[in-house]
Amino acid sequence: MTIRVGIIGATGYTGAELVRILSRHPEVELVALTTKSYIGKPYWEVYPHLYKYNRMTGEKMDLPYLLEACDAIFIALPHGHSMAVALEAAGRGVKLIDLGADFRLADYRVYEQWYRVAHVARELLPAAVYGLPELYRESIKDAWLVANPGCYPTSAILALAPLLEKKLIDPGTVIIDSKSGVSGAGRGLSLGSHFSEVNENFKAYNIAGHRHTPEIEQELGKILGEEIRVSFTPHLLPVTRGILSTVYAKLSSPVEQDELLELYSDFYREELFVRVMPRGMLPQIKWVAGTNHCDLGLVTDPRTGRVIIVSAIDNVVKGASGQAVQNMNLLFGLPEDTALAGPGLYP
Amino acid sequence: MTIRVGIIGATGYTGAELVRILSRHPEVELVALTTKSYIGKPYWEVYPHLYKYNRMTGEKMDLPYLLEACDAIFIALPHGHSMAVALEAAGRGVKLIDLGADFRLADYRVYEQWYRVAHVARELLPAAVYGLPELYRESIKDAWLVANPGCYPTSAILALAPLLEKKLIDPGTVIIDSKSGVSGAGRGLSLGSHFSEVNENFKAYNIAGHRHTPEIEQELGKILGEEIRVSFTPHLLPVTRGILSTVYAKLSSPVEQDELLELYSDFYREELFVRVMPRGMLPQIKWVAGTNHCDLGLVTDPRTGRVIIVSAIDNVVKGASGQAVQNMNLLFGLPEDTALAGPGLYP
Amino acid sequence: MTIRVGIIGATGYTGAELVRILSRHPEVELVALTTKSYIGKPYWEVYPHLYKYNRMTGEKMDLPYLLEACDAIFIALPHGHSMAVALEAAGRGVKLIDLGADFRLADYRVYEQWYRVAHVARELLPAAVYGLPELYRESIKDAWLVANPGCYPTSAILALAPLLEKKLIDPGTVIIDSKSGVSGAGRGLSLGSHFSEVNENFKAYNIAGHRHTPEIEQELGKILGEEIRVSFTPHLLPVTRGILSTVYAKLSSPVEQDELLELYSDFYREELFVRVMPRGMLPQIKWVAGTNHCDLGLVTDPRTGRVIIVSAIDNVVKGASGQAVQNMNLLFGLPEDTALAGPGLYP
Amino acid sequence: MTIRVGIIGATGYTGAELVRILSRHPEVELVALTTKSYIGKPYWEVYPHLYKYNRMTGEKMDLPYLLEACDAIFIALPHGHSMAVALEAAGRGVKLIDLGADFRLADYRVYEQWYRVAHVARELLPAAVYGLPELYRESIKDAWLVANPGCYPTSAILALAPLLEKKLIDPGTVIIDSKSGVSGAGRGLSLGSHFSEVNENFKAYNIAGHRHTPEIEQELGKILGEEIRVSFTPHLLPVTRGILSTVYAKLSSPVEQDELLELYSDFYREELFVRVMPRGMLPQIKWVAGTNHCDLGLVTDPRTGRVIIVSAIDNVVKGASGQAVQNMNLLFGLPEDTALAGPGLYP
Repeated sequence: MTIRVGIIGATGYTGAELVRILSRHPEVELVALTTKSYIGKPYWEVYPHLYKYNRMTGEKMDLPYLLEACDAIFIALPHGHSMAVALEAAGRGVKLIDLGADFRLADYRVYEQWYRVAHVARELLPAAVYGLPELYRESIKDAWLVANPGCYPTSAILALAPLLEKKLIDPGTVIIDSKSGVSGAGRGLSLGSHFSEVNENFKAYNIAGHRHTPEIEQELGKILGEEIRVSFTPHLLPVTRGILSTVYAKLSSPVEQDELLELYSDFYREELFVRVMPRGMLPQIKWVAGTNHCDLGLVTDPRTGRVIIVSAIDNVVKGASGQAVQNMNLLFGLPEDTALAGPGLYP
Repeated sequence: MTIRVGIIGATGYTGAELVRILSRHPEVELVALTTKSYIGKPYWEVYPHLYKYNRMTGEKMDLPYLLEACDAIFIALPHGHSMAVALEAAGRGVKLIDLGADFRLADYRVYEQWYRVAHVARELLPAAVYGLPELYRESIKDAWLVANPGCYPTSAILALAPLLEKKLIDPGTVIIDSKSGVSGAGRGLSLGSHFSEVNENFKAYNIAGHRHTPEIEQELGKILGEEIRVSFTPHLLPVTRGILSTVYAKLSSPVEQDELLELYSDFYREELFVRVMPRGMLPQIKWVAGTNHCDLGLVTDPRTGRVIIVSAIDNVVKGASGQAVQNMNLLFGLPEDTALAGPGLYP
Repeated sequence: MTIRVGIIGATGYTGAELVRILSRHPEVELVALTTKSYIGKPYWEVYPHLYKYNRMTGEKMDLPYLLEACDAIFIALPHGHSMAVALEAAGRGVKLIDLGADFRLADYRVYEQWYRVAHVARELLPAAVYGLPELYRESIKDAWLVANPGCYPTSAILALAPLLEKKLIDPGTVIIDSKSGVSGAGRGLSLGSHFSEVNENFKAYNIAGHRHTPEIEQELGKILGEEIRVSFTPHLLPVTRGILSTVYAKLSSPVEQDELLELYSDFYREELFVRVMPRGMLPQIKWVAGTNHCDLGLVTDPRTGRVIIVSAIDNVVKGASGQAVQNMNLLFGLPEDTALAGPGLYP
Repeated sequence: MTIRVGIIGATGYTGAELVRILSRHPEVELVALTTKSYIGKPYWEVYPHLYKYNRMTGEKMDLPYLLEACDAIFIALPHGHSMAVALEAAGRGVKLIDLGADFRLADYRVYEQWYRVAHVARELLPAAVYGLPELYRESIKDAWLVANPGCYPTSAILALAPLLEKKLIDPGTVIIDSKSGVSGAGRGLSLGSHFSEVNENFKAYNIAGHRHTPEIEQELGKILGEEIRVSFTPHLLPVTRGILSTVYAKLSSPVEQDELLELYSDFYREELFVRVMPRGMLPQIKWVAGTNHCDLGLVTDPRTGRVIIVSAIDNVVKGASGQAVQNMNLLFGLPEDTALAGPGLYP
């Protein structure tokens, strides 16, 4: 099989990571790398780590051509740009994997409220599948439009799913304290990503207002079977890659730590990319850097009646491009870990 | 006035920071720098940033001499070592400022339970004053034995004091998610402070079991007037200096954000070292690095009924040696910010 | 004495460092902070580490007002902007300290060749003094226009001055391999200062073409008494502050290492800010971070007949704003280390 | 084919990198991981990034067993430990790849002088092949004992080989200014690898005395056909992985930059792992991190008559374990890039 793939927005960090991952994918042929800023430029000049590995050239997006030439298209653009693409692509037989937020929220009003953009492709929302394979594997296989999850939501949802499914925690007590590397802010220039401002620094941002909040709540609510409101606080780590989420919740009734660890191990037993750490071992972002893993660990605190779950992912891989390729593998009936297996670099 | 000062344990990071701060203190004369590892070695060879500024030599601790020669002694040793020193010093007229944990917990049983060491100076506990000037300024002035607060507790207590004093939050809902730079682990070698293990990494540690937990609970309980149990999770940031604590609590009843900011501004109005950030601005550790400040910011979240407070300190300064000098200034009737005033480096 | 000071270009990193240093200068009153990007904005909003310390507001540059109101003006702008200011200021009795390159090169043709800008104030060049106090202290005292040295040149010239003055090395063999922190690139946004591009990275840049080359050669040539051509290679370190230069030269004839160390100690005996490290100790940038020091160390290599000198400065302090204040102190007859003395932070 | 592989010293960083690389090698079966510090411990507990990927246990070295069970043995120990192993292995048909220094220097007296250890396996030195495939590919194929090059030498030799072979530079003028990440110092604890000492710091070390100097000189001398003395200065970068060497030499006569670039491209035309950067592009360590590449770039400076070559490798991969696997591939007639091909992570 050869899957002809186009990447819209190939010169951002998630685009570059797609190129890197797909370059070792045995069934993929890259057809087009579109860009706004680097049209006509050899791609390896934009990303010299790919020198001698990629000989393509950045090109202006030509959607009719892409829809013709591709079996799958990744959209690696900021939110707001995928709706128009999806409207054109609908019914054309092309698979769309959108790394942006446009199709993640089932309710367009929630989208419009949090993203301050009109949703112009509401009619496609029912067709969109939330691309978290660990929860929606079967639906993804049959979809044509996959909404690849946000980075923070991936780390938070996988951390909480087993507890919510078993209704072991009080949903009103969930707090998600997340810390992300700077690559999550993309390659666009801003004072907030300027080396001398970020280095040796650490801060919280968008408290009680980050756009990943409704996405997390939607997905946790689906697992739980009822609405849920969480506190979600993102922070900026002075590292390039990685998200660590520390998640707090009150246990509905006392449970042993080992029992919960077993629950998690069972819940994720068949998963290739979720590693439940044994008792006494807690995830670290460097253990998953460059991989599609989500590492999970947990501790119960009888003193406070809380469980604290720690989850670690690489924001660019499992939090974006790796998960997108995982979804592509599902869409085309390939082994889910094609081009994604293997441990990361250490140290 | 000349205060003759000795530092026990001068070659660790908090000892070195005491030397640096005191080197610009107009009323202090350093009398002795004791060390175990560098006896007989010029101090500037141990810390070459002090080359040409310090001409002292590391010496073996000679307590009788210190008690004779000093007006004030800082103890910058790990817990467990200050009790013997204090027993000797009691009644000798010397002021002791202990940067370790031995005299922070009023109840020796709590100390013994969390630190796994017998408390051999229980009789001195009533005399010890918890050295957080913003809360105990008057008692410190009259003390001879000051228990300098832990770094995490300093950041957590200052973040919560106004809310607890006014009983605006539900005490059972307090969660303190703290992130510290690596200098907090000291200069002793360990894999956990090894560059290649910490760099580009981030982790939680000692969840539900860190020894600063009872210290935080003791102090919050004193403000509140009743027992309190909190969840406290420390994390290791890949930076040298700084602690940022993100603190969550349910509001007892809805309060406006501006009202709370005003409460904080009032509470800390006379404080030289606590800066309440204006609405929309949240603390960052780089803004306080190298200073004795504690910066505070907060956000209310009507969706969840929570308040989220962010607090930033330099763990080596306000979290240790700076606060210790602040206490010394109080003990000797000096302006509290002597040798401590001024903004830090940026960037 | 009160020196009324204005800073043109106060919101860049060197401007901010001037504000920080001058905020603890007992004889200075800040009169105006000019800016292009932050007109009307409280200065502490631009640099929140100064919150509660600075209550000024960024203002548009009003040169006639500045010339009227100030005793001294620091120009912290990129090259090309100081010539017009100096033309206006000439003869007005105001002292100008230019942190840019416009008045560093005595020969306007060299300036125009390397900076690709016409020099429109050629007639002022003879009046400009190169503001390296260790070499030109007496001339600086009488000047009205001081050309503050570049960061790399400061580190290179101080490293080589003793050897060149004594003609101990072959001038044709000098190689200066320099490594700078990212703050040297300023606060302006660029991919080259974008966190994820710089972090965990290291590169050489502008090999054989950096604009500090003619400045270094001019100054080394003046010491030597003849023309000199050097190889100068700048590199970008993934740290915020610091320059370390490793300098190579062939010794004209064999000399003992200790003899050279003594030569250096003698040469800089009266200098407050140059620290010659003892045998076996080599400078490190963290030992000078935040200070106005230049630390020097050297090794002779009998196998190759070379001497290798290592020099470390903080690029923002001794390499820019600290040296500028040192010059101001000289201009106004103050102790040279006013507001500049003291060791830096460590760790 | 299945190559049965043992790793002696598997729990250091180069050992762990061998495990990582070999875990994706289709022809390799790991037979034993020996260790001193972690005997009986699951290997993934020592290196949790390998959790679920490696199920082996650290074991005490049992050389007779290894010689029996293995087709190839990697020795990832500090210098001084491989001689005894090699003496036992000689004539047993096992291939030895030594990542230490014991067999790199052809002259045992040079080894003993620089390493201060007696060479107890002198008779094996003639059999040892210096494992730099780009220069000695054919000899490696037939060897049983491969001396894997040092990290700094790899970066320096590949940078200079084309120029020396063509005798285009004056050999007496070669200066190699190298900067290495901290992982090069290994996993052993020392103040020099302690996070708070290294972070935001930079220093030169072992000037004119580093043990890689004679190795560099031996290899450059072999290419040149005569003895050569170079200045080599290592520095410590505050990053985990990467070496960048900036190499200076006087050109024997003027040559155009493009001519030299063509020479380099020709010299390395068939090499899979050496990438000669096009004019105007210089290597950066992040572009090779995690890969077996050596990137090379150069600039000529007509002003000084020098050529400046920049070379970048990952010290743990091309500088150690990757190159070792490259050698193993050669020893067993496999495609040289098996388990080694592919671009690295970026950013």
